[in-house]
Amino acid sequence: MTLEAVLSALAACKVEPKGSLAHDATTIDPASWTSALERAPSHDASTPSAYKLTKTLVFKPGKPKTDEWTPVMVIAREETNTRALKTFCGQLGLSDLRLADDKHIEGKYGAQKNSVSALSLNEDRINISVVVLDSTIASSDEIFAVKAASSEGTVFLAGRDIHAYLQSLDKSSQKLHVVDFAKLAEEEAASAAASSSHPAPIAKAAAPTKKTDARIEDAHQLAIGVKKEVDFSTWYTNVLVKSEMLDYYNVSGCYILKPWSYSIWETIQRWFDNEIKELGVENSYFPMFVSSKVLEREKDHIEGFAPEVAWVTRAGSSELEEPIAIRPTSETVMYPYYAKWIQSHRDFPLKLNQWNSVVRWEFKTPQPFLRTREFLWQEGHTAFLTKDEADVEVRQILDLYRRVYEELLAVPVVPGIKSEKEKFAGGLYTTTVEGFIPTTGRGIQGATSHCLGQNFSKMFDISVEDPNATAKGERLYAWQNSWGLSTRTIGVMVMVHGDNQGLVLPPRVANIQVVIVPCGVNEKTRQKVYDACDEVAKQLKKVGIRAKADLRDTYLPGWKFNYWEQKGVPVRLEIGPKDIEKKQAIVARRDNSEKSTISVENLKSDIPSLLERIQADMFTRAKEVFDQRLIEVTKWEDVVPTLDNKCVAVIPWCEVEACEDDIKERSGRSAEQTDERAPSAGAKSLAIPFDQSRWPAIEPGKTKCPACGGDAKRWTMFGRSY
Amino acid sequence: MTLEAVLSALAACKVEPKGSLAHDATTIDPASWTSALERAPSHDASTPSAYKLTKTLVFKPGKPKTDEWTPVMVIAREETNTRALKTFCGQLGLSDLRLADDKHIEGKYGAQKNSVSALSLNEDRINISVVVLDSTIASSDEIFAVKAASSEGTVFLAGRDIHAYLQSLDKSSQKLHVVDFAKLAEEEAASAAASSSHPAPIAKAAAPTKKTDARIEDAHQLAIGVKKEVDFSTWYTNVLVKSEMLDYYNVSGCYILKPWSYSIWETIQRWFDNEIKELGVENSYFPMFVSSKVLEREKDHIEGFAPEVAWVTRAGSSELEEPIAIRPTSETVMYPYYAKWIQSHRDFPLKLNQWNSVVRWEFKTPQPFLRTREFLWQEGHTAFLTKDEADVEVRQILDLYRRVYEELLAVPVVPGIKSEKEKFAGGLYTTTVEGFIPTTGRGIQGATSHCLGQNFSKMFDISVEDPNATAKGERLYAWQNSWGLSTRTIGVMVMVHGDNQGLVLPPRVANIQVVIVPCGVNEKTRQKVYDACDEVAKQLKKVGIRAKADLRDTYLPGWKFNYWEQKGVPVRLEIGPKDIEKKQAIVARRDNSEKSTISVENLKSDIPSLLERIQADMFTRAKEVFDQRLIEVTKWEDVVPTLDNKCVAVIPWCEVEACEDDIKERSGRSAEQTDERAPSAGAKSLAIPFDQSRWPAIEPGKTKCPACGGDAKRWTMFGRSY
Repeated sequence: MTLEAVLSALAACKVEPKGSLAHDATTIDPASWTSALERAPSHDASTPSAYKLTKTLVFKPGKPKTDEWTPVMVIAREETNTRALKTFCGQLGLSDLRLADDKHIEGKYGAQKNSVSALSLNEDRINISVVVLDSTIASSDEIFAVKAASSEGTVFLAGRDIHAYLQSLDKSSQKLHVVDFAKLAEEEAASAAASSSHPAPIAKAAAPTKKTDARIEDAHQLAIGVKKEVDFSTWYTNVLVKSEMLDYYNVSGCYILKPWSYSIWETIQRWFDNEIKELGVENSYFPMFVSSKVLEREKDHIEGFAPEVAWVTRAGSSELEEPIAIRPTSETVMYPYYAKWIQSHRDFPLKLNQWNSVVRWEFKTPQPFLRTREFLWQEGHTAFLTKDEADVEVRQILDLYRRVYEELLAVPVVPGIKSEKEKFAGGLYTTTVEGFIPTTGRGIQGATSHCLGQNFSKMFDISVEDPNATAKGERLYAWQNSWGLSTRTIGVMVMVHGDNQGLVLPPRVANIQVVIVPCGVNEKTRQKVYDACDEVAKQLKKVGIRAKADLRDTYLPGWKFNYWEQKGVPVRLEIGPKDIEKKQAIVARRDNSEKSTISVENLKSDIPSLLERIQADMFTRAKEVFDQRLIEVTKWEDVVPTLDNKCVAVIPWCEVEACEDDIKERSGRSAEQTDERAPSAGAKSLAIPFDQSRWPAIEPGKTKCPACGGDAKRWTMFGRSY
Repeated sequence: MTLEAVLSALAACKVEPKGSLAHDATTIDPASWTSALERAPSHDASTPSAYKLTKTLVFKPGKPKTDEWTPVMVIAREETNTRALKTFCGQLGLSDLRLADDKHIEGKYGAQKNSVSALSLNEDRINISVVVLDSTIASSDEIFAVKAASSEGTVFLAGRDIHAYLQSLDKSSQKLHVVDFAKLAEEEAASAAASSSHPAPIAKAAAPTKKTDARIEDAHQLAIGVKKEVDFSTWYTNVLVKSEMLDYYNVSGCYILKPWSYSIWETIQRWFDNEIKELGVENSYFPMFVSSKVLEREKDHIEGFAPEVAWVTRAGSSELEEPIAIRPTSETVMYPYYAKWIQSHRDFPLKLNQWNSVVRWEFKTPQPFLRTREFLWQEGHTAFLTKDEADVEVRQILDLYRRVYEELLAVPVVPGIKSEKEKFAGGLYTTTVEGFIPTTGRGIQGATSHCLGQNFSKMFDISVEDPNATAKGERLYAWQNSWGLSTRTIGVMVMVHGDNQGLVLPPRVANIQVVIVPCGVNEKTRQKVYDACDEVAKQLKKVGIRAKADLRDTYLPGWKFNYWEQKGVPVRLEIGPKDIEKKQAIVARRDNSEKSTISVENLKSDIPSLLERIQADMFTRAKEVFDQRLIEVTKWEDVVPTLDNKCVAVIPWCEVEACEDDIKERSGRSAEQTDERAPSAGAKSLAIPFDQSRWPAIEPGKTKCPACGGDAKRWTMFGRSY
């Protein structure tokens, strides 16, 4: 690549170099590079006064099975000791790494080792790589020399700009890893020390010691890689991948739901499906395809979805006569048939639901569970003769959604109504259960239950003759609702409860609630301990507990502790030879790390109540946090500081749409950007809570909207959001 | 339209007119037409010696709500009395029909009433119409005069050719109806007579009489419209629509699964899902999209699917850089990740399943449940270290499929292995449960469980290091299976059990197993009888029976009998005032129409056992038929007569692929085409049954293949098929 090409690539990403230089060819030897830089004709004019050299190392697996091996590119300060890379890569499942030779580097990056650098990357190349950036570069304002994808050119970039540039290339947000090599090396050393003093499975029996626990904690931090409070986005995706909930997929914005997350969805499905069947809702399945004519029938509605609709235009080798859309939601798929099926008032109510996937081809950065191009959900579509019936159902369903969050996922939500600006396109009004992610201070829409009014029924002619009409031929139009709950639930749960050890699962949705780990066995005691573990699992299963004895021979107890903690299993039982003698087990709670001893005799009653206690505690803790972050704000100047303080501002609002636009614009302008992946730093209205009683009564004509000074109507939650 | 255009449209459909004629403009008056024909200059040369006039009538709803009303076009002999059309259309949900005026006809068919005819139709126009063809034309070899979509031209066509032409236009196979007006009028008269003697709900109590039953039967035949034995395809779709299992959808080849069929799918899902979880299979969800590169990795496999793959090329208004396929099945979606997840022999077995929909854009005539462009299924994908384990699982799953058919759906199947020609593209061998539709004598593949061998694992590198290898680096490739069961199950069940009254549901999958109908009530007794019905429903629900009391005031008992019989509910209980006095109910079986009296006291024990008896009887009857139609054939000259006799020929087969091609070709050539919608009249191998013991032992080198004279290997089922 030429220096010009490199500079224009940087410009395209709005990264401004601090200088650039053409020079004689150099090698990977830093002395050679320094000398070439200093001897360059325009050195003085084009070079910053101070800069640090970088190095770029490319690794490959020892014996790649095919050409499709994943290269690991390390970009570090010249002086950084990158030895701990091995540990880091091991956690990514990459082992046996060797320095790649010129042929291999050239094959992947079109440059040889003398030339290759961060600037050899582009979107495609980063996509097939693991890129590891030295954290002392990523967070630094110092200036670094980077080879211009050539041994004959150098670009000077601020550390933060190198980071920003790589982030802009890494569309999937999964290829770039910022690593603190020094810290990693330290932790590795501590871990190795602890490990050597830790009994191997064939060593004599020993209860887990304090030292063991320390080791486990360290190991966990290694595994998740980053701290929740420090780099929330990376933490989130790491937790999902490490806990085996999810894997990335080679179509951008699509993810694989592995059994560990899908089983949570199944639990939600079972519970919600039973509840709606009690309400008389029946399941059905409508096709995933919609003709463009039908899709575009309702104007407001389609305007809301059009930019994200995926179109099928070809089948086999034939072009379709008309492109066919994949449903982004099924209102327009279903309602022409509602019009056909509803012929008289006796055909009301019609209540159908389906469990399916929908496609919304988002162009914003995707985020697993929260913003994906295909996602799983249920969509209920009901039609009633009267508005009253529709109104009642909207709230019944919303309360079921609240219960999914609060009772199954232990996630507190605030039920409320959306502002006119935020309501469902084409509907009458939208109700929501609004969640909150404390770490980022952002609100998140949990699930919505819409009253569509008569807008769609008039559009699609879902009408009957008025049975009470005096004049013949008067028609009554259906009152309709639609309501949906998606796998987003799982993402919210992970964000709220997860910690630096990984996932924390509420017992009611955990596919394994109790894991039993044999500890401190030797060849003599092994079988006895294994049998005891197995028996405990059986006993627990008999009382309906989802228990599993982890009897794998090939892993140490400490490794198993890590593994199941990372996966968020609510309770761990440890059983060793001495525990058997004492008819006891050690019980460890995942949610608060408490450990205690429990009598084996009482397990069948104590464990179920412990699980319920954990469930309740998790909810209570999360609720306390959410409550503390709902801040009553009555002066405009307090709004942005409240948001910056990771809180939601609850203001007495005028409910005027222009005022909402204004709040968004003003709060966005002054706001500090805290999470670059989140869609917006401006605040929008999250919900107008149904329960207004927690705030002082609004005095009509007296209480004023702090944003515009108009008459306030209701207390409304404003916040940054997902 | 010009006469030329009409003739070329006919030619495109390979319909050969018996003559055509340009003449003076005519009106709808037959005398005017006859006269114009006779006065035409080339009359003698271009006109068949004998022909009949046709008439074309177009109807519209009295007050169409919008422009999108459905016109009904009736094509009949001039002399046919089409008065019974009203009854027929009522069954299609079209009421209040009036003759359309010129403006309306022109709007729909581009011709006025003097010109409009069958030849005004094309694919688009038939698609927005209901077309009713006089059965005395459809089945006739006589020649008919048809207006050439113009009042100044006439084409002469054989009755059968008119039928064939309309069928060729009717791609959805749902727009064209062949109606016997004379028979319909007769039935209508019979029904009206019976009806007038039947007690209205407010009339005095009376047990259903023999006459009532007769009426119901007649009414049913009307409702389904055609007899199963006479026009199986129309019967099938009518049953599906009338029973509210399914509705047609405006994207061709896609159908709406209404709750009445979807609940059957849910029952199958629940049962099968429990069973596979017992085997250690876990559910997951992989994206519906596949990149073309991944899809095309396995050559044989993709060759099998490529012509049917739907491609997304656009999102919103942006063209995608690369088209993305919608999965036709998920082997290539999943296996790159299996390669990633399986790193050591400890990662075996990997057993995942998903419940999803897949898309195969078939260009053959679609048929609900059997051949649709999107369908629901489960697909299991498992990977093992050894072939033995894979072999065992293939058969375990196949046996679960057998049990879904036999134990849930009461449909007998033959488990066996597919020939090399018929196996899954890219797999090692395919096992199948093979069903049979007695009415058409065709075999139908019920579900398949494939051993993929190591073909995919080598392609996608799903491999581990050999834990026992002496030389390092030797790799073991996974042995893989995939297996799928789809909503086709429901279609097979309908075809096997349905009768001329409609659907017949096996109790285990019926969403309502017992319907309770109050009979013979008057104003005084109504509440008492309704309460009794309600109480019976409650009692039955307590013992786990899915019971429903139909207490709708607006319908007569006879109407309710029809309604629930059409929907296939296994048991009907009738309760009237006298029954209450006697503490009894009348019980009617849907499967064999038997009626008896049952004591209310014993309902809670008698009904569950009755339902099990019905389930068993339905299976036994179907099994007897299938067994009788499996004909042992050892001479070639018996093969085609066996097929023509609606049987399956079981022959001692050589298992040579060329011989199978030859059998197909020879049997197709000589076969009589019995069902024009079925894909082929040639016989293919359906399955090599695992249980060979029902036929004489094959003597190696002695028993010869009747098709080619080669050495026979195993008894193999050959038949026409879906």
